[in-house]
Amino acid sequence: MKFDGLLMIPGPVHLHERIIRAMSRQMMGHRGKEFSEIMRYCVDGLKELFGTKHDVYIISGSGTAGLEAAIASFSNVRRITCVDNGKFGDRLGRIASRYTEADVVRFEWGKSIDLDAVEKSLAEGSEALAFVHNETSTAMLNPAEELAKLAKKYNALVIMDGITSVGGDEVKMDKWGIDVAIVGSQKCLGAPPGLAAVAVNDRAWDYYNEKCPFYLDLAAYRKKLPDMQTPYTPAVPLFFALEEALRIIEEEGLENRIRRHRLMSRAVREWAIEAGLQLFAEPEEPSDYSNTVTAIRMPEGVTDKDLRGTLQKEYGITVSGGQEHLKGKIFRIGTMGNVCKRHVIATLAAVQDILMRYDACKPALHAAIEVLKEL
Amino acid sequence: MKFDGLLMIPGPVHLHERIIRAMSRQMMGHRGKEFSEIMRYCVDGLKELFGTKHDVYIISGSGTAGLEAAIASFSNVRRITCVDNGKFGDRLGRIASRYTEADVVRFEWGKSIDLDAVEKSLAEGSEALAFVHNETSTAMLNPAEELAKLAKKYNALVIMDGITSVGGDEVKMDKWGIDVAIVGSQKCLGAPPGLAAVAVNDRAWDYYNEKCPFYLDLAAYRKKLPDMQTPYTPAVPLFFALEEALRIIEEEGLENRIRRHRLMSRAVREWAIEAGLQLFAEPEEPSDYSNTVTAIRMPEGVTDKDLRGTLQKEYGITVSGGQEHLKGKIFRIGTMGNVCKRHVIATLAAVQDILMRYDACKPALHAAIEVLKEL
Repeated sequence: MKFDGLLMIPGPVHLHERIIRAMSRQMMGHRGKEFSEIMRYCVDGLKELFGTKHDVYIISGSGTAGLEAAIASFSNVRRITCVDNGKFGDRLGRIASRYTEADVVRFEWGKSIDLDAVEKSLAEGSEALAFVHNETSTAMLNPAEELAKLAKKYNALVIMDGITSVGGDEVKMDKWGIDVAIVGSQKCLGAPPGLAAVAVNDRAWDYYNEKCPFYLDLAAYRKKLPDMQTPYTPAVPLFFALEEALRIIEEEGLENRIRRHRLMSRAVREWAIEAGLQLFAEPEEPSDYSNTVTAIRMPEGVTDKDLRGTLQKEYGITVSGGQEHLKGKIFRIGTMGNVCKRHVIATLAAVQDILMRYDACKPALHAAIEVLKEL
Repeated sequence: MKFDGLLMIPGPVHLHERIIRAMSRQMMGHRGKEFSEIMRYCVDGLKELFGTKHDVYIISGSGTAGLEAAIASFSNVRRITCVDNGKFGDRLGRIASRYTEADVVRFEWGKSIDLDAVEKSLAEGSEALAFVHNETSTAMLNPAEELAKLAKKYNALVIMDGITSVGGDEVKMDKWGIDVAIVGSQKCLGAPPGLAAVAVNDRAWDYYNEKCPFYLDLAAYRKKLPDMQTPYTPAVPLFFALEEALRIIEEEGLENRIRRHRLMSRAVREWAIEAGLQLFAEPEEPSDYSNTVTAIRMPEGVTDKDLRGTLQKEYGITVSGGQEHLKGKIFRIGTMGNVCKRHVIATLAAVQDILMRYDACKPALHAAIEVLKEL
């Protein structure tokens, strides 16, 4: 028998059955009132999660499409500072350099950002700052509020990749002074992949670049927003799913949801430490650990196939490997979206079972259960 | 009671129930073997529909995203000639001009293309030609094979927007000498909106522009194709739907499918003429009528709300209005994807019922039924 799968990766996430069912629906005209009502609910819900009163534009495409829409649309800057301490920080620099001069401030993957180095780059004449809030490649949370404050000192536009934090961790765009932020549908929102949303305050439009890509030109999305329409045909079934995902978030309550995400990732970390495993991230402050994903070093003598292959085969559970130079060196457990206590415990029990065959860890489920009791 | 809707617009199309059900499925890891097998089936199926042996890249985004990926990725040309005899021809020019010099050769909407005018532009030094195969804004089919032949005379790259023809009308990319072609999921393929596919032959890569947008850079898609993966997280539920849509096409057979599309649109045209209505398109050859959509002039004294509003309210049927300067002046009936005889007849009967209240047409269903008998 083939197991019913359980996805415990940092997105796409395992779907709540209500969201699966929500997609199973006949198409509707995307220029009609019925679609606009769905879109209005989505836009309003997303504003809450971004912590903004400003516009939110929904793009049919992956998180990367949203990221590029944000950077390209507001790339009328002489220079942009991009903070890179992981794969997605690296991606920011790659995207930005297609539009303007990008000064990529690099830090070792898994290490905290040095704010002084970022300030130095800003002081050298950057007009914008882009950074990743929650870096899933290394399982770290970067200090968004501090970075935004620093940028304001130099009057720089602040663009935040919140793809894997919005909806699962605290994001206060307006309060923190973030001008542009991005989220992906298939992460903490708990919806399937294929939509990205970009929140944009008024100030960002001073940096608008009219030569940005046509499909990703946020001015076209802005023009259609009062009618709650999109400039190009939206991925309608994914809007059905997003609407249901946002209803689930509303029912849970954002504060409860953030608390759940924090407890789930803390449970994974405490289990790992108790089991004698090593976390990959070595942040200066415990608050720099990601609250939505955990990266653990692969124990010596255990290959990716040994762990992830067996986990898949015997338990039907998928966890992520490392990316780029971390391939085979770490594994990552996503605890995002609508997964709950039993998913986390089952995953840790399965990983532990397999690693113990290699004498690579000791029983430590109690440490996770202790944390999850609070849920 | 609110009616179960019937979409008879030129996309998104009414979905076959098998496709609706196909989306209702738990997510899977998009880097795993199971997803790759789905993608392989989709790529192979699309190659057949494009009439190509070359690569097909699937992008999560609307048809416009596919169009821009095609134009931007291969925009390393001094000048591109864009043929414009409708809204989507106009869009080609708008996209192309963000990347290179675009010479837009304009014709009146609803009129056939004058090949001499296109040749003149090519002769003046264009290195590429872009045109729309099936122009849904006016319901015309442009002469793809002749345009490609003309371009070859000037050794120009040929980019064809096949968004609303591939899978419903004859497209022979390799045979006709088309270098790059694009299709959208929500048109003749019969799938929901949110995916676009771009077919690219080897020659196109001579025109590759490495400064194209990151998300739409087809080189990234090309790199991942041997592993049957996408460079960025794909819209997984839409791949489930596309796979099922392509299975339905395989079962019907492409030739039968094209024949069905041609008969359905001919039925609409013959009904309209017999009913005393006027077709909007005034092509030089009957073969220039679209085989997937029909545009009809709104009879005098009938408003858009009178016809389309009542149709929606009383029958639950959606047909399209006119776009841009044609708003309120025409209405358009899409006969794309998996709609069948009964959908066409019901739509014409309903439109006729409403127009007769204004003495704006006469009974003519027999003309449509006569054509549809051949199905």
